[in-house]
Amino acid sequence: MAIITLATDYGNSDGYNAAVIGVIKSLSPGAEVIEITNGFSSIAKTSLVLWRYYSQFPKGTIHLVVIDPTVGTSRRALVGTDGNYCFVGPDNGIFTRIMEACPDSQWYEIDPTRLPANTVSNTFHGRDIFAPAAAFFANGILPESFSKKINDAVKVDIPKPIITAKRISGEIIDIDSFGNLIINISGESLGDKPKVILKGKKLRLGKFYADARPGNPIAYIGSLGLLEIALNGKRADKYFQVKVGTPVKVTI
Amino acid sequence: MAIITLATDYGNSDGYNAAVIGVIKSLSPGAEVIEITNGFSSIAKTSLVLWRYYSQFPKGTIHLVVIDPTVGTSRRALVGTDGNYCFVGPDNGIFTRIMEACPDSQWYEIDPTRLPANTVSNTFHGRDIFAPAAAFFANGILPESFSKKINDAVKVDIPKPIITAKRISGEIIDIDSFGNLIINISGESLGDKPKVILKGKKLRLGKFYADARPGNPIAYIGSLGLLEIALNGKRADKYFQVKVGTPVKVTI
Amino acid sequence: MAIITLATDYGNSDGYNAAVIGVIKSLSPGAEVIEITNGFSSIAKTSLVLWRYYSQFPKGTIHLVVIDPTVGTSRRALVGTDGNYCFVGPDNGIFTRIMEACPDSQWYEIDPTRLPANTVSNTFHGRDIFAPAAAFFANGILPESFSKKINDAVKVDIPKPIITAKRISGEIIDIDSFGNLIINISGESLGDKPKVILKGKKLRLGKFYADARPGNPIAYIGSLGLLEIALNGKRADKYFQVKVGTPVKVTI
Repeated sequence: MAIITLATDYGNSDGYNAAVIGVIKSLSPGAEVIEITNGFSSIAKTSLVLWRYYSQFPKGTIHLVVIDPTVGTSRRALVGTDGNYCFVGPDNGIFTRIMEACPDSQWYEIDPTRLPANTVSNTFHGRDIFAPAAAFFANGILPESFSKKINDAVKVDIPKPIITAKRISGEIIDIDSFGNLIINISGESLGDKPKVILKGKKLRLGKFYADARPGNPIAYIGSLGLLEIALNGKRADKYFQVKVGTPVKVTI
Repeated sequence: MAIITLATDYGNSDGYNAAVIGVIKSLSPGAEVIEITNGFSSIAKTSLVLWRYYSQFPKGTIHLVVIDPTVGTSRRALVGTDGNYCFVGPDNGIFTRIMEACPDSQWYEIDPTRLPANTVSNTFHGRDIFAPAAAFFANGILPESFSKKINDAVKVDIPKPIITAKRISGEIIDIDSFGNLIINISGESLGDKPKVILKGKKLRLGKFYADARPGNPIAYIGSLGLLEIALNGKRADKYFQVKVGTPVKVTI
Repeated sequence: MAIITLATDYGNSDGYNAAVIGVIKSLSPGAEVIEITNGFSSIAKTSLVLWRYYSQFPKGTIHLVVIDPTVGTSRRALVGTDGNYCFVGPDNGIFTRIMEACPDSQWYEIDPTRLPANTVSNTFHGRDIFAPAAAFFANGILPESFSKKINDAVKVDIPKPIITAKRISGEIIDIDSFGNLIINISGESLGDKPKVILKGKKLRLGKFYADARPGNPIAYIGSLGLLEIALNGKRADKYFQVKVGTPVKVTI
C-alpha cells in the first residue's frame, strides 16, 4: 500500500484539500493519504520543511506538495524521483533542496493530456493534475508514461555560508513556530570550540536548551544537522529581534 | 473498506474531533476516517464546500459533517444518500446544495434510541449520534433500521441569479482563503463574449490568472464550473473591497 | 492493525509532525496514525483533553502525546499503560488525569539506548524517542524491553472541589473553543435541585443549551460528566468575563 503525503497552502476552510484527497482515493483506492499540512506559505520554507520530513518516511513514499502561487501561468507541473522517494508538485522551486541533496534525482514535466480523462481546470491543478499524477505513482505507473524528462527544473536560491579558515559567515534560513532560529551552517563544519555570534552576542555551543539558564540563549546542532539558536523556555526570534536573512557568524 | 470523511467546526485544541474518530473506529474498525477540516464556520459556506469535494471521493464514501450551532435544541439529526454517497449531520441546511444537485436524494431522521447503547449526551451529538450513525453506514446497515424517512429536511436559502436575454445578475457567494471571489453564475450560461461587471469595473473572461497582468483582475470559469474573479498574484477581495453578497453582473 | 493517535504542539508550518509520522510508518508500516491535533498548548489542558478522547478509541490504541516545553532537559521520556490503552510522551504531567482515573496504570522510563539505532537529537524527541517507542508498542514489543518501571511519574496539580453537606466549591478548569466553561464538579455530586452560582449569577440546571432563551446562560452536565456552563448561541467566557480558575459554587 503506497503512502502519499500531502502538503499544501490550501487552508482549512475551503475543502480544496478534500477534493485532492478524494481524487487520489478514487484513482488509487489502496493509497494511504497522510495530510501533513494545509498551512504552508512560502516556496523557500516549503523547500526546507520538505527536506526535514521526506526521508523519514518509508522508501517508496510519494510526496505531493502543492504550494503554487503561479498556478494558471505557464509554469510546468513536475514529478520526480531520487530513487527512493517520489515527488509531485509545481515547478517553482519547492524541490530545490531535494535536488541539491540528490544530484542524481530525475525530474519530469507532466503531460496533462496523458492523465485520466477529467476536466482539467486552469486554476485547480492540485485536483486536476497533481492528484492524478500522485495516484499514478501509487499505482506503479512509471513517470515516462505520462511525463517527459527535463534537465532544467526551477530552483530557488539557497543561501550558502562563506567558509574561511577561521570563520564561517551564514544566516538565519528559517524560524520555526517555537521561535527557534535555523542557520545555514552545518554542524560538521563547526570544529571543536566554536563561538557563535548573533547581533554581537557570543554564544557557546551546548547540547540541550537546558545548557543555558532559563531565559538565556544557546547554540546547538539541531535535528536537521544544522546550527540552531534557541532560548531556554522563550522565543529566540523575539529575544534577538531577528528574521530570516539575519547574519550569523561562527569563529572556529 | 469504507471511507468516512469528517468535517467539523470543533477547532484543534479540545479533542472533540478525536472523540468522534475514536467512536467511529470502535464501532467500525475497518473504516478509513479522513479528517477534512475542523475549521468550518457557517452553514452556508459548509454547504458550498461540501458540494466542492463530496463527489471527488469514491462512490460509497460517507460524508460526516458536524457544523451544529443549534446542537441541544429540537433540530433533527439526519442521514441521507443520493445513491452514490452517504451523508450524516445535523438538519440545519448544511446539505442544501446536495439536495438541490440531487433532487432524488433520500433523507432520514436518526432515532438515537436505535444507535448502540451509549450515554447520549445533550451537547455532544458528534460523538454520541453522528459518529455511530456514520459507523452504521460503514458497516452496511441500512438507514431504515435506525432512522425514518422525512421529506422536509431543512434547506438554507441559496441565492439564485436573475437571468434575462442580455444580462445575468448574480452575487458573490463565497470568498476562498486566497481571496478569490466565487459567484453564483454558471459558466455554461455565459455565452461567447461576456462582460463581467463588479463595482463598476468591466472584466473580460480569461482562462488563467495569468491572462491578467500581475496585480490586475480577471474573470474565469473556476473549478466548480462557476464564474470566479481573482487577481493575478493578490487578493481580489481586498482589491475590490467586496464581501459575500456583493452583486456581480454579466452582459451577454 | 494498531492505531496510534498523535497530538502535539508542533503547529502546521514546520513539518515536525510529518517527521514523527514518517518515523512511525518506517518502523511499523501497518500502524494507522491518526493525527488528532498539532495545536495543543498547555500541559494542564492537554491532560484534560486526552482524558476526553483516549477511551473512545478501540482498546489497544496507542496515544502519543508530545507537548514538551522542557525537551532537552533531564525530564524523563515515558510510556505507560492502563491495561487497555498505551501512552507515550514526556514525563511532565500530561498524563496526570489518566493516572488519577486509573490508579493501577503502569509507567516506565524509556531508555533511548534500547530504541532502534538512529541519531538521537537533543531537541527533537518526538522524532527520535517518542515515535520509535510508539512504533514499538504497535509492533507488540513490551515496555519492559526498552524502558524501566517507575513509581514517581510527574503529576500536575488538578484543582479539586471542596464538598460540604450543602455546598460544593469548584472552579473553571477549561474553556473550550466555543467559549463553554468546564467546571471541576462532577454531575453525580449535584443532587436533585442544585443552584449553580457564577460571579453572583444563579443558574438552574438544564439539559440542553436551548433550555435557556437565546443569549442566556445555562448550566448542564456536559459530555465529560462534569458541570458546564454555556450560553445559548454565544460565548459564555465573554458573557461572564471569566477565565480558567474562576470559582463556581453549587448549593445542593
